[in-house]
Amino acid sequence: MLISPLSPLPPELAALVAAIQPANAAAVAAARIRQAQLTKPLGALGELEDISVRLAGVFGSDRPHPRGVAVLVAAADHGVAAGPHPVSAYPPEVTPAMVANFLADTPAGLGGAAVNAIARSVGARVYVMDAGVNADLPPHPALVRAAVRRGTSDLRTGPAMSRDEALSLILAGAALARQAVQDGADLIVPGEMGIGNTTPAAALTARMLGLDRLGQDAAAVTGRGTGVDDATLERKVAAVREALARGGSDPADPLGVLADLGGFEIAAMLGMMLGAAALGKAIILDGFVEGSAALLAVALAPALADSLFAAGECAEVGHAAQLAHLNLKPMFRLGLRLGEGTGGVLAAPMLLAAAATLREMQTFAEAGVPGGA
Amino acid sequence: MLISPLSPLPPELAALVAAIQPANAAAVAAARIRQAQLTKPLGALGELEDISVRLAGVFGSDRPHPRGVAVLVAAADHGVAAGPHPVSAYPPEVTPAMVANFLADTPAGLGGAAVNAIARSVGARVYVMDAGVNADLPPHPALVRAAVRRGTSDLRTGPAMSRDEALSLILAGAALARQAVQDGADLIVPGEMGIGNTTPAAALTARMLGLDRLGQDAAAVTGRGTGVDDATLERKVAAVREALARGGSDPADPLGVLADLGGFEIAAMLGMMLGAAALGKAIILDGFVEGSAALLAVALAPALADSLFAAGECAEVGHAAQLAHLNLKPMFRLGLRLGEGTGGVLAAPMLLAAAATLREMQTFAEAGVPGGA
Repeated sequence: MLISPLSPLPPELAALVAAIQPANAAAVAAARIRQAQLTKPLGALGELEDISVRLAGVFGSDRPHPRGVAVLVAAADHGVAAGPHPVSAYPPEVTPAMVANFLADTPAGLGGAAVNAIARSVGARVYVMDAGVNADLPPHPALVRAAVRRGTSDLRTGPAMSRDEALSLILAGAALARQAVQDGADLIVPGEMGIGNTTPAAALTARMLGLDRLGQDAAAVTGRGTGVDDATLERKVAAVREALARGGSDPADPLGVLADLGGFEIAAMLGMMLGAAALGKAIILDGFVEGSAALLAVALAPALADSLFAAGECAEVGHAAQLAHLNLKPMFRLGLRLGEGTGGVLAAPMLLAAAATLREMQTFAEAGVPGGA
Repeated sequence: MLISPLSPLPPELAALVAAIQPANAAAVAAARIRQAQLTKPLGALGELEDISVRLAGVFGSDRPHPRGVAVLVAAADHGVAAGPHPVSAYPPEVTPAMVANFLADTPAGLGGAAVNAIARSVGARVYVMDAGVNADLPPHPALVRAAVRRGTSDLRTGPAMSRDEALSLILAGAALARQAVQDGADLIVPGEMGIGNTTPAAALTARMLGLDRLGQDAAAVTGRGTGVDDATLERKVAAVREALARGGSDPADPLGVLADLGGFEIAAMLGMMLGAAALGKAIILDGFVEGSAALLAVALAPALADSLFAAGECAEVGHAAQLAHLNLKPMFRLGLRLGEGTGGVLAAPMLLAAAATLREMQTFAEAGVPGGA
């Protein structure tokens, strides 16, 4: 059953979307002028200059001063990953084990996963959310509980979740973003963990980019995720095709697409993006799963695109198509394909540095350097 | 006159070179094994894994812990940039003006140049050296004085400097690296400022890569530097060809090549690299001028290659050829072409993060995560 594109958004979601403003055009214009006056050859900081100007737009000042960085890691399980014919190189049991790892007490501090180590290294704070993990997670003061169920239904045979469930996770994601902002974050990195989640991400991407309507195959955006072998990749592509063939959702209804094809952690990340943008903060996009949430976010709230910054180009096929659709340029190409928000955290110092050039460099006139524009 | 390839190195330089050790092979092997056991799909951190393993080799531990970052900016003027037919888009007066900018008292702290802003942002310390600026620089406690002359001779018509002058700047650069290490730096970023310095850098690169002997033209490594117009680029290429055509040096004698075609800030950066590597520290390479010093450094001390990490691929033509020769992969491609060490400072958080993954992540066994190798 197709849901009407005109079905109204639930009021809480409509309120979030309505709060999202586009970039401050005056700050963007002032920042562009200022970049041209700073003591360096025009354009010599390359794409860092564009990033600084976009940050000016987000923070409403030609001297933007973002400070705290937070990475919000939502974890969930997936119906499509259960059963005897896996779509991932790892068993579903890895999802709760990795949540425990995110929260582990290690000699270096909280958490022994890549995102913990990288976040400590750049001074970012890590938040962990149970968005629907298939396990009894032991209580932990740093674990945010938002699960409505222990994993989605299998998207091959029916909707992954209900619209109400999707909404619940979106609002939980937005609430966590609000918490992180209250704790001092200006740069929000949505992150995820969920064995099997590049399968729903590929299905969401194919639908939101309209690949099925364009007669293009889902294989164009379905990749090896954690590093699956050929047989598993074939199963994964088949799963995505099956899910799309059900025709259960319409790109004009992003909430419907999310419920039809999504994951609980993807819903949560969508909420984090909406929540962060509604509070005027910048969002750093990590990889392919995060990108699938961003496609939904921009479909719901086009102005949110101004708040998005791409970290690296991840190795997952389909990520480049997402970035092209979002009109974003990746800052690096290190071949990352881990998720967890790791690439986003790694990009944070670059955003902070870009803002610092705009804010702290002297102009040719201030410095008395000859040769300014 | 060709200097014999067998002419012995001055004893102070020979001692520096002799102190440089290759990567610790045991630490590299242990780090590789450890990376494969950490809680992530094998290879999922992409090139960050290779960087972490190389850092293990430099710091002699499979849990490397580099801490402080220092950027050492050497400034100097160039005979080839003086006179009525410039090779740069900016007049030579910009060199001392930018030194004043590096040392300016600004509301944000010391220095109003890009390197100051980016260094503050990532927590790096900035050191500034007068390596031969054509001006009476006012005294400043943070200015290291190492000039032997107010700019090189014009390399079109004769050697840029004497071997003794080159040696003096190399030793000053090594001393400054030693100072930075004593102050806590483990990652050293050589940086430079010198109107006209991409011209000697191109000449050095062409000679050290053997372009003239291969019958290739110097234009292949001579680019637009600060952004020169076509006419200036033509003059620049002509200057490089003239300098090479004198046949005043042999790649087998890197000190001779430096004296023949170099700049004082390039000599100082060569010294910084030798000094940092001799103390077992990592060196982050910024752009094209830094790359020309690295070619000399590796020719003098092949083991130094193990200590080099490329930051971004800069926009200057010829940089890619340098990196290929040094067997280095750039971490990002942001189109930077500023110098000052800016790209190197921007890359420092990535190196620190790479080391953190190796040092702080748990193994599959430690974390109790199923699916490890």
